[in-house]
Amino acid sequence: MEKQNRSGTAGKVIRCKAAVCRNPGEPLVIEEIMVDPPKAWEIRIKILCTSLCHSDVTFWKISIGPFALFPRIFGHEAVGVVESVGEHVEEFQEGDMVVPVFRPNCRECRDCKSQKGNGCSIFGDKLVAEMPRDGTSRFKGMNGETLHHFLSVSSFSEYTVVDVVHVVKISSEFPAEKACLLSCGVSSGTSLMLMWMTGIGAAWKVADIEEGSTVAIFGLGAVGLAVAEGARLRGASKIIGVDLNQEKFEIGKKFGVSEFINPATCGEKKVSEVIKEITDGGVDYSFECIGLASLMEEAFNSSRANWGKTVILGVEMHNTPLAINTYFLLRGRTVTGCFFGGLKAKSDIPILAQKYLHKEINLDGFITHEVNFQDINKAFDLLLEGKSLRCIIWMD
Amino acid sequence: MEKQNRSGTAGKVIRCKAAVCRNPGEPLVIEEIMVDPPKAWEIRIKILCTSLCHSDVTFWKISIGPFALFPRIFGHEAVGVVESVGEHVEEFQEGDMVVPVFRPNCRECRDCKSQKGNGCSIFGDKLVAEMPRDGTSRFKGMNGETLHHFLSVSSFSEYTVVDVVHVVKISSEFPAEKACLLSCGVSSGTSLMLMWMTGIGAAWKVADIEEGSTVAIFGLGAVGLAVAEGARLRGASKIIGVDLNQEKFEIGKKFGVSEFINPATCGEKKVSEVIKEITDGGVDYSFECIGLASLMEEAFNSSRANWGKTVILGVEMHNTPLAINTYFLLRGRTVTGCFFGGLKAKSDIPILAQKYLHKEINLDGFITHEVNFQDINKAFDLLLEGKSLRCIIWMD
Repeated sequence: MEKQNRSGTAGKVIRCKAAVCRNPGEPLVIEEIMVDPPKAWEIRIKILCTSLCHSDVTFWKISIGPFALFPRIFGHEAVGVVESVGEHVEEFQEGDMVVPVFRPNCRECRDCKSQKGNGCSIFGDKLVAEMPRDGTSRFKGMNGETLHHFLSVSSFSEYTVVDVVHVVKISSEFPAEKACLLSCGVSSGTSLMLMWMTGIGAAWKVADIEEGSTVAIFGLGAVGLAVAEGARLRGASKIIGVDLNQEKFEIGKKFGVSEFINPATCGEKKVSEVIKEITDGGVDYSFECIGLASLMEEAFNSSRANWGKTVILGVEMHNTPLAINTYFLLRGRTVTGCFFGGLKAKSDIPILAQKYLHKEINLDGFITHEVNFQDINKAFDLLLEGKSLRCIIWMD
Repeated sequence: MEKQNRSGTAGKVIRCKAAVCRNPGEPLVIEEIMVDPPKAWEIRIKILCTSLCHSDVTFWKISIGPFALFPRIFGHEAVGVVESVGEHVEEFQEGDMVVPVFRPNCRECRDCKSQKGNGCSIFGDKLVAEMPRDGTSRFKGMNGETLHHFLSVSSFSEYTVVDVVHVVKISSEFPAEKACLLSCGVSSGTSLMLMWMTGIGAAWKVADIEEGSTVAIFGLGAVGLAVAEGARLRGASKIIGVDLNQEKFEIGKKFGVSEFINPATCGEKKVSEVIKEITDGGVDYSFECIGLASLMEEAFNSSRANWGKTVILGVEMHNTPLAINTYFLLRGRTVTGCFFGGLKAKSDIPILAQKYLHKEINLDGFITHEVNFQDINKAFDLLLEGKSLRCIIWMD
C-alpha cells in the first residue's frame, strides 16, 4: 500500500522538465522526462534550486571511457523538498527540506561509525553509478530511453530520486508549508553550502588551521575562496592566493586573501620559491583546489619543513600521479586529500546549515549570478569563461 | 685560559685510532689520526661504543657527487663520555655520558621551540657538512690531510668532536667515575636507542597508532622491527611484516609481527593487494623502512581509504620521486615522513633513555653481534649479508 502524499503523486511516475546532456560538451537540452517513484530506501525530491560546479563540467566534457555516460542528467549541488518516500524510509517524510550529497553516509559501516574521515565502506564512491542499491536509473526520456544519473544526485531536473544515504535533512525549522516561501535566500545559500563546506571542512577539519598560521591556496574558485574564508575565521596571519586570473585578488580580499601570486608574472621563479621567500621557508598549510598534478606538487613544495601540510581538494584532470620528493617528505611534511572537506554528511551538514541559518556564516560573496532553469547553459558559459563563482539556477 | 680536565688533554690535539674510509665501498682502515680540541659550542667525546646503520653503508657506497667525500670517518649511532668542552659550553661538562645525534636541536629557533616536528631551522640537515658553525674539520691524518666528518657525529673514532646542538646528555645517574664501569650493557643499549627511537617515534609520535589498529611494515631491519615493537606496545591487532628475507618472520615475531609477506612469493599479486585482502581494505598505518620509491608506493597503496596513514622512514636510494595516485589521496589517505622518528633530541631522548635504564624498554633482540673496534669491517660484512640487525662495535 502506497502512503499517499498531499499532491497525490506518490507511487506514480512524475513528468517534469530536466536539463539533459545528450552528448559530451554540448549544451544541455531542457526536455520533458519521466521520473520513477522511489524504491525502498529512496526518496523523490522536488528541487528548489541548484548550482553548477566544476565537477559537473569535468564529467560533462569526458567523451570516452567508463565515465562517458550519455544521455545524462548532471548537477550535484542542490536543495529541495521531499515529495515522497519509498519503502523502509523512516528518516525522511514529505515536506522535509533536504540537501542531496554525492558523498554517501550510511551510518552503519565501520567507516561511517568512526570519528575519522568521511568515506562509506558500504556505498563507496560510485562516480559512474545509477541508483546505488540496484544499479538502475529512475529517469526515462519520453521515448522510453534510459537517462543516466550523476554522482547519485542529478539535480538538473525538477524532480530527482536519491538514496537515503545520499540525503541530509537540514532543519526542522522549516515545515513543508513554509519551505517554499523561505526558500529564496535560504535555499540558494544552502545549495552553496555544499561547495562552501568542502572548503571550510578542509580548512577546519582536515588541516585544522591554527591562529597565526600561514596558508597558500592554489586556485581561487569557489572552493579555494571557501578555504580562505575558513583560514580567515581561524585567524591565519597570511593567506596567499595563487591564480592565473588577476581579478581574483580583489574577490579574494573579501575572504581574507592577503597576498596574491599570479604564476604568469613570476618569471623564472616557481610559485613555490616565491611563497618560500615571503613566508621564511614555506607555509604551514597549502591547498590545491584545481586538479592538476603539477600544481599539487607546487603546493607540496610550498609547504614548510617540519610540519607543513598539503591538502589536495582538486580531482586530477588527466589522472596524472602526484610526484613527491621523498627527501622533502622525510623533513616532516605531510600530504593528504579529501572529498567534501572530510565532513560526514549526516552529522556535519546540519551543524553548518544551522550556523548559516543563524547568520553565523556569510556566503554573500559566493553568489555571483542567478539564472532560471531554462537558461542553465548560461551558467555553463559563465563558469567556463571564469566569470562566475557560483551561479544559482532556480527551478521555478 | 683553558679549563684543564682530569687527563690533562683539554685544549690539546689528541692522537687516537679511527676507522677511516679512504675510498667508497672499500674496507675501513684503522689509522692513527689527530683530533683537534673543541672550538666554541663544541665538545670532544670519548666514544665508548658505536654501531653500524644502513645510512652509513648508503653513504659509504656513494662514489660521485657532492655526497662522495673521502677520506671520511663514518658512524652516527654511539654513546660516549665528554672529554673536554669548548668555549661557551655550559650544558655539558667533562665526564657526562652523552649520545651524539645527527638531527640537530638548538632549542632556540622557531622549529625547535614548536611542539611539532623535529627539524631545526638554524642548523638544518647538513648531511655533507663538517662542523656546522665554521664548516671545517676537526680530524687530520698523521700527514696533515683533512678527514671529513659524517652526519655531524663521526663515531668510528676513539675521540670525536661534536657541536652541542648535536649532543644529548642521557642521565645524571652516571657520574664520570662510574660511566666506564657501567657502560657495558648500558652503553650498548644506549647506542641502539637511536635506531630504536626512530622506529618507536614513528609509531608513537608520527603515526600515533591506536589500540586495535592494523599495521604493515615494509622492511624488517632494525628500524622496521622497532616500529613493530612500538605497534605491539600500543596494542595493534595485526602487524604485517614485508621482507624478502623469509627468516625475518621468526625474528619479527619477537617484536609483535603477526603476519608475514614475502614479495617474492606473491606471484602475480602486488603486496598491497595481498595486504588489502587480509585487512578488509587496507591497513590503518603503513611504514616504509627501506628507501625505495616503488615500495613507498606499495606502502601507500596498502593503506585503507578514509584514514590510512603512510609514514616514510627510508631515505630513497636513487632519489626517485614517490608517485601517488591522487584519487587514492582524495579518498582520505595521508602520507608523511620523518627523520629520527619525529623526536626532538634534547627533550625526547632523555625520557626514552630513562625508560631503557629502568628496564621499561627491552632492546635485547636487536643486538645480534658484537665486535672489537679493530674488526669493524666485520660489522659491514654482517650488515651487507643481511645477517645482523645491529652489531655493537666496542672501542676498548
